[in-house]
Amino acid sequence: MKRRVYLDHSATTPIDPRVVEAMLPYLTEKFGNPSSVHLFGQEARAAVDRARQLVAELIGAQPQELIFVSSGTEANNLAIRGIAERAAPYGRHIITSAIEHPSVRGVCQALEQRGWEVTRLPVGEDGLVRVEDVRAAIRPDTVLITIMLANNEIGTIQPIAEISHLVREERQRGHRHLWFHTDAVQAAGRMAINVAELGCDLLSLSGHKLYAPKGIGALYVRRGVQLAPQMLGGHQERDRRAGTEAVPLIVAFGKAAELARQELDARIERMRALRDRFERGVAERITDVVFNGHRERRLPHLSNISFRYIEGEGLLINLDLQGIAVSTGSACSSGTLEPSPVIRALGRDEELARGAVRFSLGKDTSEEDIDYVLEVLPQAVESLRRISPLYHRALGERAERSPSN
Amino acid sequence: MKRRVYLDHSATTPIDPRVVEAMLPYLTEKFGNPSSVHLFGQEARAAVDRARQLVAELIGAQPQELIFVSSGTEANNLAIRGIAERAAPYGRHIITSAIEHPSVRGVCQALEQRGWEVTRLPVGEDGLVRVEDVRAAIRPDTVLITIMLANNEIGTIQPIAEISHLVREERQRGHRHLWFHTDAVQAAGRMAINVAELGCDLLSLSGHKLYAPKGIGALYVRRGVQLAPQMLGGHQERDRRAGTEAVPLIVAFGKAAELARQELDARIERMRALRDRFERGVAERITDVVFNGHRERRLPHLSNISFRYIEGEGLLINLDLQGIAVSTGSACSSGTLEPSPVIRALGRDEELARGAVRFSLGKDTSEEDIDYVLEVLPQAVESLRRISPLYHRALGERAERSPSN
Repeated sequence: MKRRVYLDHSATTPIDPRVVEAMLPYLTEKFGNPSSVHLFGQEARAAVDRARQLVAELIGAQPQELIFVSSGTEANNLAIRGIAERAAPYGRHIITSAIEHPSVRGVCQALEQRGWEVTRLPVGEDGLVRVEDVRAAIRPDTVLITIMLANNEIGTIQPIAEISHLVREERQRGHRHLWFHTDAVQAAGRMAINVAELGCDLLSLSGHKLYAPKGIGALYVRRGVQLAPQMLGGHQERDRRAGTEAVPLIVAFGKAAELARQELDARIERMRALRDRFERGVAERITDVVFNGHRERRLPHLSNISFRYIEGEGLLINLDLQGIAVSTGSACSSGTLEPSPVIRALGRDEELARGAVRFSLGKDTSEEDIDYVLEVLPQAVESLRRISPLYHRALGERAERSPSN
Repeated sequence: MKRRVYLDHSATTPIDPRVVEAMLPYLTEKFGNPSSVHLFGQEARAAVDRARQLVAELIGAQPQELIFVSSGTEANNLAIRGIAERAAPYGRHIITSAIEHPSVRGVCQALEQRGWEVTRLPVGEDGLVRVEDVRAAIRPDTVLITIMLANNEIGTIQPIAEISHLVREERQRGHRHLWFHTDAVQAAGRMAINVAELGCDLLSLSGHKLYAPKGIGALYVRRGVQLAPQMLGGHQERDRRAGTEAVPLIVAFGKAAELARQELDARIERMRALRDRFERGVAERITDVVFNGHRERRLPHLSNISFRYIEGEGLLINLDLQGIAVSTGSACSSGTLEPSPVIRALGRDEELARGAVRFSLGKDTSEEDIDYVLEVLPQAVESLRRISPLYHRALGERAERSPSN
């Protein structure tokens, strides 16, 4: 059988077998509705409470500060729309970055269509938002800043604590109706997260990015922050999100969060070592590559590389035929033919943006996996370049410039 | 070990073991994100497509007419808010019934707070909405009618096809911006549903009411009906609901829908026979009971009974101690101390509303289960009545009226 190597953990992760085991009783005999008064219901309620505690511990929050939702996208929607609805009387200006996840971008655009103003801060070549830019963008009518903790395509980690510091200063100056949300969907399980240290008011999480199933996420809402619920008509989640709790998924998310907390350091160390080995291997074996994103301030599992003269999409398909799964950008924006707006925002030209491929490792990625990719990738790039007019033109230009070569 | 009898299938159902089996591969090796281009993603995409086909078949719809969401509550939210947002320029009037699920009630209330007008049609003592009342309530600015297919507390089945007929007549008269939504969450798997026969434009479904896990639902949207998405920022579900698809849950929902379709007649026959046996037993063994809801036009699995002189909540707890799980109303409104608004809407006095208990059977409820409940229930009612001041007052009044007794 052909080797299959999954290097698309930023799109989704396999479910940890220990997580499946933890959720199984809730797929079988423990099936109650947590809102039911009887024993079946109470059993389910207790399981939801335990899981909430575990997810809270992953980020240093109190359990009651978490709202379980169906996805990271829902967490981002709830955070932004929930604050916007409450804060509208005080102002209708939002500050965000140019490289947010499509769900944050989408909600901001929708608000813009309803008359809100949105400032999209640029990022540097390294993908970093500058704190000074945030400071300069704050206006009296700014009610929300939403900037991700770590980017989903390049892994760059934003200066969230510094921005929170700014927000607190603003509040002390009397700007009371200003909240700060950060999308930590990609960061969770790949770096230490502590909401007290980050200082944000709201933080989004997704289960399936940290070895829990798809269909579950959570929004951290700091105690005292009021937001308008978006799913109406039931008392669940302290009246903040109606709908029967997805008990098996919540239990799974809790277990995954527990494991992520316990194993975080080991996972980071392992992934970083393999990722660095991968990048060294690529740099040694393949010419004309550009590594995207900040070199140090970044998630340990991710490597985003632009291969000059070829299309990332072509490389993705070539690698897929050889059992290797990678991606060209956010899975949530796949299907579009546009080059990644994140890579474009780094100031890369369209060719480099089109040639960008994201390799994202997981906690169980092995040395053998990386070695296999390092064996296959150079040939794949070479074969695509061989049929690339851009490549031949560039070769011709080089030959002209140094005829002796 | 004490016998445990679960008669709260309207709150939630156990997951069918065949459903668990069907979803297991998607909790283990088949973990891809359906938006990913590579093989892992395509495997997941194919599974979602198959499941969509199966859910569509349960209600006679086309697969592309279904939007997967996280719950019945989300389906109701999406239907009502999605239509309201689009239709607002044409009118801001909604017609609904007095006995809708909390999620429909909640969204209608929220719209009212934003200036919409909501007409809540009363129901008869049998729980039926009168088609003539719907006709009389339609105004030129009516854009949405939302009336449930079958009620979650009493099981009464509403005249949806007749209301659809009305809507079509209205449209022929030029009232183009009028849509009809029905909440079929309780009905699915307990009666035959065919959207062509029902004639509605939108229809809500929930997985966990038909032996799939909690965390998945669907909204049927008739081809051509435009609604504003409520979850933004991703291309999933044909741009109608952003967020990574909950693949294992969708697969489970598909399998549960397939089984519900194949086994529907047998399930109905079995549940109805046991339910009727239960009601006969109650009528024979317990005095001063009132059966709530229409006697014929109702779901086959449900029996709602008011026990005079006692509190339903007390009976629920008494039965729970003896291993029997029932409920007093919608699980989504549990925690409130108000008597059920549904039972009140039937014209019952507060005492009867407080004394109402819902027994809801499942496809696997057995004769032995029913016999056990019939053994325990009369004693439970009797012991609660013995300590009820209402009961003693009533006994005294009876003794006065017929002293020879």
